[in-house]
Amino acid sequence: MANSDSKKYKLGMIGLGTMGRNLLLNMADKGFSVTGYDKNQTMIDKLEEDGKNHNLEGFSDIEKFIDSLDTPRTLILLVPAGPIVDSVIAELKPLLSKGDIIIDSGNSHFSDTNRRAAELEKEGLHFFGMGISGGEEGARFGPSMMPGGDKNAYNVMKDIFEAIAAKVNGDPCVTYIGPGASGHFVKMVHNGIEYAIMQLLAESYGIMKNGLGYSNAEIHTVFKKWNEGKLQSFLLEITTDIFPVKDTETPNDLLDMIKDEARSKGTGKWTSEVSMELQLPVPTINEAVTNRDLSKYKALRVSLEEAFGKKDTKIDISVDDLEDAFYFAMISAYAQGLHLLVQASKEYGYELQLHEIAKIWRGGCIIRATFLADIYQAYSNNNALEHLFGDSNIQQIIKGTLSGTRKTVAACVGAGVGIPAFASTLTYFDNITSARMPSNLIQAQRDFFGAHTFERIDKEGVFHADWN
Amino acid sequence: MANSDSKKYKLGMIGLGTMGRNLLLNMADKGFSVTGYDKNQTMIDKLEEDGKNHNLEGFSDIEKFIDSLDTPRTLILLVPAGPIVDSVIAELKPLLSKGDIIIDSGNSHFSDTNRRAAELEKEGLHFFGMGISGGEEGARFGPSMMPGGDKNAYNVMKDIFEAIAAKVNGDPCVTYIGPGASGHFVKMVHNGIEYAIMQLLAESYGIMKNGLGYSNAEIHTVFKKWNEGKLQSFLLEITTDIFPVKDTETPNDLLDMIKDEARSKGTGKWTSEVSMELQLPVPTINEAVTNRDLSKYKALRVSLEEAFGKKDTKIDISVDDLEDAFYFAMISAYAQGLHLLVQASKEYGYELQLHEIAKIWRGGCIIRATFLADIYQAYSNNNALEHLFGDSNIQQIIKGTLSGTRKTVAACVGAGVGIPAFASTLTYFDNITSARMPSNLIQAQRDFFGAHTFERIDKEGVFHADWN
Repeated sequence: MANSDSKKYKLGMIGLGTMGRNLLLNMADKGFSVTGYDKNQTMIDKLEEDGKNHNLEGFSDIEKFIDSLDTPRTLILLVPAGPIVDSVIAELKPLLSKGDIIIDSGNSHFSDTNRRAAELEKEGLHFFGMGISGGEEGARFGPSMMPGGDKNAYNVMKDIFEAIAAKVNGDPCVTYIGPGASGHFVKMVHNGIEYAIMQLLAESYGIMKNGLGYSNAEIHTVFKKWNEGKLQSFLLEITTDIFPVKDTETPNDLLDMIKDEARSKGTGKWTSEVSMELQLPVPTINEAVTNRDLSKYKALRVSLEEAFGKKDTKIDISVDDLEDAFYFAMISAYAQGLHLLVQASKEYGYELQLHEIAKIWRGGCIIRATFLADIYQAYSNNNALEHLFGDSNIQQIIKGTLSGTRKTVAACVGAGVGIPAFASTLTYFDNITSARMPSNLIQAQRDFFGAHTFERIDKEGVFHADWN
Repeated sequence: MANSDSKKYKLGMIGLGTMGRNLLLNMADKGFSVTGYDKNQTMIDKLEEDGKNHNLEGFSDIEKFIDSLDTPRTLILLVPAGPIVDSVIAELKPLLSKGDIIIDSGNSHFSDTNRRAAELEKEGLHFFGMGISGGEEGARFGPSMMPGGDKNAYNVMKDIFEAIAAKVNGDPCVTYIGPGASGHFVKMVHNGIEYAIMQLLAESYGIMKNGLGYSNAEIHTVFKKWNEGKLQSFLLEITTDIFPVKDTETPNDLLDMIKDEARSKGTGKWTSEVSMELQLPVPTINEAVTNRDLSKYKALRVSLEEAFGKKDTKIDISVDDLEDAFYFAMISAYAQGLHLLVQASKEYGYELQLHEIAKIWRGGCIIRATFLADIYQAYSNNNALEHLFGDSNIQQIIKGTLSGTRKTVAACVGAGVGIPAFASTLTYFDNITSARMPSNLIQAQRDFFGAHTFERIDKEGVFHADWN
């Protein structure tokens, strides 16, 4: 369906893969006049086929595509993160005019987004980093979106974004996040939390399978029950749904036929790396990243199990203890991610509104969960809250989970059930709730061998002792 | 003492702070004709004062300094890592000739060393990254040195380095590490291991203090006894010596007057970051870095202890259990660092000889320990050993420690004694010795929400399922 000369499109999508195509269809559904570009004609055919009931046109000629857009032009990039984003921008630049808006919606590293925004600002172009979460289905029917950049430019796009976003109690799961690369930063931390919760679910599965000796059917029943209560979440829901799926090639459950080597695409690792740069502890996320990596040393693991012998991993805990442990650790995973956002906001001047972020994570995204309502409440009560553990409602919840958590973690480390994320979450809690840590010894050691000095508890200043 | 025109110095030191000055004195002791340069006349005076019995001359004029050196010139930089290294190199370049050798002995990031070596190679200059460990005393009387770069250039310097290095059974604690930035890389990992062991010692102190209720005097006695046996090491020795030191301003032990906020200078963090880039698990090092960071949130910790209440941290373990746990975790910290070296060697083409590295870590450096002899033996028996846990002697040692380790970790997580490094070390062991991890669930989740595909246990290929 050709575009008449008189009618210009309001928004153009570059990259018509799964995410781009579905987001465009979502926009068309909501009555917006949008179009798409892809180098690959197959992708355009697919768009026009899926969108045959919409007035949707795809271009494989970039000049015609740009010419079809209303000014200021609004372009969304949904292409693989990395050098491809730079090459697409280079191709676009000569065709655009001052005031046009480019929105990168891939999982770009926030430092790349900063660089690109600075480069394009010189040309009078607005560059937005906008994280989108929700996968294929979210893109099609309502994602959670995290756009950061120039606020005036955001207001141009606001109507479309609010229309296509997921809704929770009528509120759209999109908001202006803040200046600079804050949108991509917040999406990165979202994914870090996602890594942590996925690892905790995998460990819960491991505890039930190896510690309690449950069958897949029994594990399914437990997860299903959890998902009907306070633990309800998208990740728990899909985890529940995984267990009954049968393999099509063998008589087994499909899950049992899947290799235990977890892959990753980098956003979890970036979260850990930047947290170390900002000196902000996110140990549960670190362990999630580390144990995806560890899982890939399969041949080594097989040979070391042979050398050390298979462990007798049977433990004596109740499934209620495990539920407490999961609730505790899930809360802590969110708390660590949010703490990182608080620190990054200070460091990078993002002016993040934590209650707004909690609000848009309640729907559409991979980490959506009933518990986000508690987080939203905590930051609505006090948007300057440094740490989620500082909220009195959260404190009451955590206090109720500690006994089961300690019982679970102690039993697993005693018997050799591998629970890196659960254990690190509990040790994190134990240290962050300790007024006095044994870290004074580290300062003494550093001063002893390297004259690195120390501070004192009774007065200001920097001191060095003669330890010998 | 002026340099006569006929006599040229064999080596010049740039930067006459504590490390540079002491290293130069060490060389002069061994009969080498060496000189130093510093912008700051006070540093030159200090060198000439400390070296009044040596034929030592210091320069504050860089041209005269360079002119005083024999060719090819050999220069060691001991200036703070970072941009200062670049500015010193820029100042030196016009004064040098093809074939001259610059050795950066600060704690530079290995990626900076790669960049500098490539830049200087174009000018015909050899650039070496050489990690030095041992602190002030090591520099003066025998450090451990880790030089990486062009092997022919190394041979020019070999005699001096072997003469000044620490000796173990007559073997010098220096060897040619490998090409490129391998010297700085190995030193970085040395420091990562150092962070881990320091954290484990701090946690052991915390366990004895808070879990067992020991006084400083009792803790001193335990550490002293440990250091007389298989656990003997430099870090344990100085830890032991810290406890009896009295504060000069109050009647208390000095340790009790030191703030529990641990500082860091970056090499531990770099180790964790690069391990995540290489997807090689070093969770004990990660926790050491993370908990130095966590310790700095003092006000938050105080307020959260108030909110959650002080924990009753008394536990029922023996000090022998704790000794087992420390032995186990110390071995694992070395194992993780060495595993990272194996992986980095593959990735970066460093051709590292692990037994040679273990050999030069036996003396002079901060992580020197009796146990390094076991590591040296393991890699001497099999230099292609992928992981230290694969050595049968190490396996026997670890098997003997597991019961005490599990008891200690379980008791601490049960009672709330903060032991992030001990717990993560044990969960690392439990996963790396598991032929089957629950990570298949993560692959199922990723395929469910993002069509990221999975592999199967029964055949090659990449698969996607319709999970709904």
